[in-house]
Amino acid sequence: MSYAHLEQTFYRLAQLSHAGSFLGWDQQVMMPPGSNESRGKAMAELRVIATEIIQAPDLADAFAAAENETNLQPWQKTNLRKMREEWRKANAVPKQLVEALTIASNECEHAWRGLRKDNNWQDFEPLLTRVFDLCRERAQALASGLAEEKAYVNDYEALLDIFDPGTRLSRVDQVFTELKQVIPDLLQQVLERQQQQPTVQKQSTAIAKDKQVALARHVMSVLGFDFAAGRLDEAAHPFSGGTSDDSRITTRYANDNVLEGLMGIIHETGHSRYETGLPRAWRYQPIGSSMGMGVHESQSLFFEMQVGRSDAFIQAITPTLQDHLGSDPAFAADNLGRLYRLVEPGLIRVNADEVTYPLHVILRYEIERDMILGKMEVSDIPERWNESMQHYLGLDTVGNFADGPMQDIHWPSGAVGYFPSYTLGAMTAAQLFAAMSKAVPDAVEHIAKLELEPVFDWLANHIWQQGSALRYDELMTEATGETLNSNYFLEHLRNRYLGA
Amino acid sequence: MSYAHLEQTFYRLAQLSHAGSFLGWDQQVMMPPGSNESRGKAMAELRVIATEIIQAPDLADAFAAAENETNLQPWQKTNLRKMREEWRKANAVPKQLVEALTIASNECEHAWRGLRKDNNWQDFEPLLTRVFDLCRERAQALASGLAEEKAYVNDYEALLDIFDPGTRLSRVDQVFTELKQVIPDLLQQVLERQQQQPTVQKQSTAIAKDKQVALARHVMSVLGFDFAAGRLDEAAHPFSGGTSDDSRITTRYANDNVLEGLMGIIHETGHSRYETGLPRAWRYQPIGSSMGMGVHESQSLFFEMQVGRSDAFIQAITPTLQDHLGSDPAFAADNLGRLYRLVEPGLIRVNADEVTYPLHVILRYEIERDMILGKMEVSDIPERWNESMQHYLGLDTVGNFADGPMQDIHWPSGAVGYFPSYTLGAMTAAQLFAAMSKAVPDAVEHIAKLELEPVFDWLANHIWQQGSALRYDELMTEATGETLNSNYFLEHLRNRYLGA
Repeated sequence: MSYAHLEQTFYRLAQLSHAGSFLGWDQQVMMPPGSNESRGKAMAELRVIATEIIQAPDLADAFAAAENETNLQPWQKTNLRKMREEWRKANAVPKQLVEALTIASNECEHAWRGLRKDNNWQDFEPLLTRVFDLCRERAQALASGLAEEKAYVNDYEALLDIFDPGTRLSRVDQVFTELKQVIPDLLQQVLERQQQQPTVQKQSTAIAKDKQVALARHVMSVLGFDFAAGRLDEAAHPFSGGTSDDSRITTRYANDNVLEGLMGIIHETGHSRYETGLPRAWRYQPIGSSMGMGVHESQSLFFEMQVGRSDAFIQAITPTLQDHLGSDPAFAADNLGRLYRLVEPGLIRVNADEVTYPLHVILRYEIERDMILGKMEVSDIPERWNESMQHYLGLDTVGNFADGPMQDIHWPSGAVGYFPSYTLGAMTAAQLFAAMSKAVPDAVEHIAKLELEPVFDWLANHIWQQGSALRYDELMTEATGETLNSNYFLEHLRNRYLGA
Repeated sequence: MSYAHLEQTFYRLAQLSHAGSFLGWDQQVMMPPGSNESRGKAMAELRVIATEIIQAPDLADAFAAAENETNLQPWQKTNLRKMREEWRKANAVPKQLVEALTIASNECEHAWRGLRKDNNWQDFEPLLTRVFDLCRERAQALASGLAEEKAYVNDYEALLDIFDPGTRLSRVDQVFTELKQVIPDLLQQVLERQQQQPTVQKQSTAIAKDKQVALARHVMSVLGFDFAAGRLDEAAHPFSGGTSDDSRITTRYANDNVLEGLMGIIHETGHSRYETGLPRAWRYQPIGSSMGMGVHESQSLFFEMQVGRSDAFIQAITPTLQDHLGSDPAFAADNLGRLYRLVEPGLIRVNADEVTYPLHVILRYEIERDMILGKMEVSDIPERWNESMQHYLGLDTVGNFADGPMQDIHWPSGAVGYFPSYTLGAMTAAQLFAAMSKAVPDAVEHIAKLELEPVFDWLANHIWQQGSALRYDELMTEATGETLNSNYFLEHLRNRYLGA
């Protein structure tokens, strides 16, 4: 009965996570501002309860006994492996260190919101130093605690394995090296070619919110979002949340820039369909959960970049868009295509196009890796940032901390090891789209008719319905015939930005 | 450190209750319909966690040790008594019985929603029998488990003590007997007198929802509702929820009957101000919580009946009401007064006026008490109901189960012992208002100017800020100089409905 006890334990953790998820959603979307402190206390206590559950002393015996159970079904054996992995990770880091990191990152993130506005690196530096110091300790604790089963090549890889389980640093280095070799030249070619095209028209008329909402809901329906098991709401900082049975996505409505928000909604719908498409039979168990952040981002980018910004989709959705929004010249199909595929080196990662985005990620990856490995200190970050921005994108950020190393929430909030997921996701999305296109030969024609079921059915079968049963390399091999490589992504960029 | 351990334990329970409260609010107000099953599982698991916490074996030792701690502050000693009481109650009922009652009442309540619509008593009877059987078991378990400290006069009193801690059956019988002696005659006098007054005008024009929302928010502000720590939303079945730091009240907007909804909002605002007015220093501890349902209802009825339906308030709020809603003849001050004080015997408790309401409650109290004491069975309820309705209100309900014994959610959901709270609350409200009027001699003049702070400050000092530090009789004696009696309520009815 020890395996059964473990399943019960992880069921309980899943329900605590359900509670945390909707308390968090409410906090961002519904909660009155004066209730923040009490909500914070409740959410913190739920986390403490979850921590105590996964650190309960009797689990060691349960795992030992479960390994000897002979009547487990194959999926249960896999689930046992997943449970053990989560349990080992949760117990590798001392409780005091977890608490110290929570406190330090809460403090740093809170201060960051104000300090970024003031471009105040000086006061930010000691707070971020404390966070990085504790992240180093965390990485060391993970790397040494899990040395036996994981054999990380270094401490940074242990952090990577938190956000994107199973991703090895050697793979990241390999694909990032390839991107670094190719993208800068490719970018120049794209920019030169773009200059020969007609100027992109920006939206010139204001669009009322109710029209934006109606369009957003329509596009979500086209993409298969199930409003009987999910909602679309507004949030100051859009995110997607909820659970696999109740998907909550959020957006921000800007009357003078409807198009950016719309693509954000397509992106979040990708995250949502992945979560809601996970196998019901394995609900509440680690095997039934989504894979790491890289695969998650691959689904949102499949929706946004591979489908949403494709010519077929833009052409197909244009009449609907004009029905809802009117006939502003910006909403002509040709212009929409150019607008949604505009490449423009800039300082801000979240505004970056898909050609320059990987360079933003690689810059951050190189810095955070060297930080964790003790090769540099927080005080070195601004100079390193400037050098890299000059090198990769030809941009100067000297003295501009707010749009430089202070622009992201990740480091102040302690999410060191997260950034690579974005670009691994983009590459994964391209490789999956290529494999899908082989399996569904008329995929583009389907997209052009907004018949998206065949495309998403392929994703459902190869990704969503797999839950976490496969390791990342296995998942990619079964879905695409090969492990992750940069060819498909680079090919996608060449086709889209330099093609006929 | 045992007392400290107990405080931590109850802090944790309070945070689980916070989670349950907002998950429940979301379920009623925001959640898409398809997510009900998964939400039910999460909320059930949180309840199981809370039950395990309060049934943890080490608490017995902690209580024993805490009793010997000499350095406790007075409020901590009271808190210890409250904690012990909650702990003893939670441990008096076997876990299997709690589970069985949860399952049976979920099943019965779910079926009730459909069966009531079909007036189907036959299929309802066995389900309700199961619930009452288990409620009897629960009452017996509580009465025998707590015999030493509580000495309940019978098993029913143990159920009463769950919903309205500290209320003794002898007190209920005394005041209900007084009401039964007086109200029927009083009702006849009121009805005769009412016939001589102008006919009440019902609203004749439809009012758009946005106007109703604006009016509701305005009236809530007048009543001191703090929108920085609370919200007003829509729900199919209005309720008030949230926590003391984040009050969530709900309503239903009927375009053709704005006035009923408005009084509902005033009622819920009373509940809300009590919760949000509880002492911050004792937050998350039993001593800092609200008293039982009777005192809670007294606050909502103080707002609704004592203030909201008073002539001074109605006269004062009329211009605002007309500003928001227009000049429908129903919204003239005189008519509003008659409409908000219309007395009309009817079949439905929730629609009853304050004169007939106690009779609805007494009818239910007598039945549920005799059910628990084994003097009757569920199959006897319809006949008994008819007899009582004839006796108390002169109404025939033969064959009309839907508007008879199937009208309330309480019994199908297992809330046996709850009904007396409504009328205890009405009497408490009248007694408090009388005491407040002595302490704040110009109270009515303040109300007439919508200067409500002096009135609510008195409530805050005498009720809200007391938390649960006092026993009910102590609370009433300190606030009003005497324990609960029916004089003030009957005097209030006579003044309002038979006065000059």
